[in-house]
Amino acid sequence: MLYLIGLGLGDAQDITVKGLEAVRRCRRVYLEAYTSVLPVGKEALEEFYGRKLILADREEVEQEADSILKDADVSDVAFLVVGDPFGATTHSDLLLRATKLGISCRVIHNASIMSAVGCCGLQLYKFGETVSIVFWTDTWRPESFFDKVAKNRQNGMHTLCLLDIKVKEQSLENLMKGRKIYEPPRYMTVNQAAQQLLEVIRNRRARGEDPVVTEETLCVGLARVGAEDQKIAAGTLREMCSVDLGGPLHSLIITGGSLHPLEMEMLSLFPLPETSSGSQSTEGPHP
Amino acid sequence: MLYLIGLGLGDAQDITVKGLEAVRRCRRVYLEAYTSVLPVGKEALEEFYGRKLILADREEVEQEADSILKDADVSDVAFLVVGDPFGATTHSDLLLRATKLGISCRVIHNASIMSAVGCCGLQLYKFGETVSIVFWTDTWRPESFFDKVAKNRQNGMHTLCLLDIKVKEQSLENLMKGRKIYEPPRYMTVNQAAQQLLEVIRNRRARGEDPVVTEETLCVGLARVGAEDQKIAAGTLREMCSVDLGGPLHSLIITGGSLHPLEMEMLSLFPLPETSSGSQSTEGPHP
Repeated sequence: MLYLIGLGLGDAQDITVKGLEAVRRCRRVYLEAYTSVLPVGKEALEEFYGRKLILADREEVEQEADSILKDADVSDVAFLVVGDPFGATTHSDLLLRATKLGISCRVIHNASIMSAVGCCGLQLYKFGETVSIVFWTDTWRPESFFDKVAKNRQNGMHTLCLLDIKVKEQSLENLMKGRKIYEPPRYMTVNQAAQQLLEVIRNRRARGEDPVVTEETLCVGLARVGAEDQKIAAGTLREMCSVDLGGPLHSLIITGGSLHPLEMEMLSLFPLPETSSGSQSTEGPHP
Repeated sequence: MLYLIGLGLGDAQDITVKGLEAVRRCRRVYLEAYTSVLPVGKEALEEFYGRKLILADREEVEQEADSILKDADVSDVAFLVVGDPFGATTHSDLLLRATKLGISCRVIHNASIMSAVGCCGLQLYKFGETVSIVFWTDTWRPESFFDKVAKNRQNGMHTLCLLDIKVKEQSLENLMKGRKIYEPPRYMTVNQAAQQLLEVIRNRRARGEDPVVTEETLCVGLARVGAEDQKIAAGTLREMCSVDLGGPLHSLIITGGSLHPLEMEMLSLFPLPETSSGSQSTEGPHP
């Protein structure tokens, strides 16, 4: 049996009781480590689960899935995924490959960022298409996500923006030279996402357009949803450029315009932290 | 502290380890019993959690929330919700009321139907606005949900249809006479939802319209998602009228038109059960 097990979003104890029992029963336990991360490290999970975890990066899952699935027809193998196995990222590939090999599969669901963002008070049923915002480079600055956000907003729908993470990436030079040297992981912040959005807005105006999403559009920044130290802050897109939400992972919601009074009341629970709108000099020793 | 704890979707063991620890620590534990149900009963939950649960119906939560929140500023109270506390139904009301009373709140997330439906292979980011389909009566047959489904489909987005449940409802007669006698619970099946959709389509055609959702639109019926005996079947809307998915809860997805090849391949894992397209007579002693 192949178990696809969601770990939820916060820490080791966010696994379900059913998931934990499966992990402890399986012969091999893989941890998917390239589409999302928990605020706690692999060691914390291993200690709580009482099992050694095998890190599975994108290369392994996409090119060497057969080694993950080895003997899974006669013994139990677990594949752990942050959030839900069919949430922000789907692991259909692995499930289909297992099925073709005659291996039974079982999915153990958990909280996904796709639904947990409801905790900010915006109503989930009013979310339109989800978009991903990727790190721009000097030469690659795609803007297509903005059209989806704009379309959602025109339809009165909120947009959840999933922010890029770069784990185990090679520099172009190392890639071309075939050197398996990896860059440090990078996680896009709400600030970076908001700055890219503002640049698209400026580009659109320069082309004579009048974008429906502007500097003043109400947004919600979320960090480490589900963790003890989660942070949520509601403010304009401009304010999202400087709000300090702390460490990864971040997500950004662009609201759909007219909010239900209950949504407004919930968002009022999440004001911007004071330091984010003005000088940062009160915050620490490094003004 | 008020804990809002998601129970997930399958059975007692779908609670998270963190959630279970909170339940066992709380002085009073309420079970929200009017927006969703688990396939297992209250007794099974009580046995596994090792705690007595207090059933909270809509009336209590909306009108007597203060009794739920009593002393929650000095002791711990848990409010258990099937799925996630901010998923298909949000419990913003209770959280806001607690906050106004100076009570700290903590949300413990879990799988929601809003994200767990991803297990059928349709990509969650491609879902548009979620709709609710309510039981029609002789005199109340709202069609507005259909326009949302149509709009999603025109935009290439899938629609998750949440199907009505009626728990602790009074008949009009009993309501008018003030008799607290309640009807047996009713849970809308995929069949009933599909039949209502087909009636809307016929109505629209009678008005000279040409609906974008038709009898031949590809749909996915889901039952008891996350439970051991979950059933998923892909087929046309017409086929959804007769597919047998067993007991509650059911959900229906209306696809957005062009599917990704991986979505198609995943859906091929969920063919219609053979008995649903033709005679039911092979299935049991009651042809």
